[in-house]
Amino acid sequence: MIVLGIDPGLSLTGWGIVDAFSRDKINPIQYGCIKTMPSTPLIERLQRVHTEIQTIINKYKPEAVAIEEIFFLKAARSVASVGQSRGAIVLTISINKLPLFEYNPRTVKIALTGYGSADKHQMQRMVKTFLKLKEIPRPDDAADALAMAICHVNTVKWASKR
Amino acid sequence: MIVLGIDPGLSLTGWGIVDAFSRDKINPIQYGCIKTMPSTPLIERLQRVHTEIQTIINKYKPEAVAIEEIFFLKAARSVASVGQSRGAIVLTISINKLPLFEYNPRTVKIALTGYGSADKHQMQRMVKTFLKLKEIPRPDDAADALAMAICHVNTVKWASKR
Repeated sequence: MIVLGIDPGLSLTGWGIVDAFSRDKINPIQYGCIKTMPSTPLIERLQRVHTEIQTIINKYKPEAVAIEEIFFLKAARSVASVGQSRGAIVLTISINKLPLFEYNPRTVKIALTGYGSADKHQMQRMVKTFLKLKEIPRPDDAADALAMAICHVNTVKWASKR
Repeated sequence: MIVLGIDPGLSLTGWGIVDAFSRDKINPIQYGCIKTMPSTPLIERLQRVHTEIQTIINKYKPEAVAIEEIFFLKAARSVASVGQSRGAIVLTISINKLPLFEYNPRTVKIALTGYGSADKHQMQRMVKTFLKLKEIPRPDDAADALAMAICHVNTVKWASKR
């Protein structure tokens, strides 16, 4: 099962593709970060995020997309930026008729570490362990996106071992 | 010049189409409201907003789109809802390669009433006057969208009278 994990943002959107054969066998395929400049008009920034996500979908053909829920405790301006990017991303997923799964940060932390208050470093180490990577994925947004994809793999009901 | 004005929201998105021959001659073409239910999954709500805006663009062929800037003083949850809908709408405008113009509420108030602190009622009366309507457009979101379109017509530099 190929899963695309997304950590949405306007300046930085992390993404990660994994291929899962079971809960315990998850292979990293690719990960990265979509960057847009604050000096660029909003419409061009959202078009850029859309085009890059579309390219990732075309290339890796994910069967499911896992995205982080909006975190309300941030400043309203930050929520507005993340929200607009997230709206453009969710619409892109919808246009591609892919199933979307939304996870809040606490659920992702529990899925990866068994602990809802795990810190960023513990999470990143678990991403490295789950995916048998030699190093922690950089930037943080890409590691967060991979965590999202792993969380989805762990949440899905596996009917039988492949 | 056909202008589409939009007052973005997730539960309610107001829209209005005007045809302007000059600053003083603005004809209302159509206006309305896109509604989505809070009980519907986000991805379906954003798809609905996208589909309806696309239908309006196909039908009325606007040459420019005027949209309200995000208002940061609201609660973060409300900013998140409006933001995601606005992101999906802006992406739809971008996909259609239409020029987008963003106006903040104060600019719209000054354009319509000459007064940056005009209240909702004064604004709605001016929309009615500008468009020579018999009644104030309902719901409020549609009136706000028409105000946005009128603001754009008043902001554009008119090279010569048509």
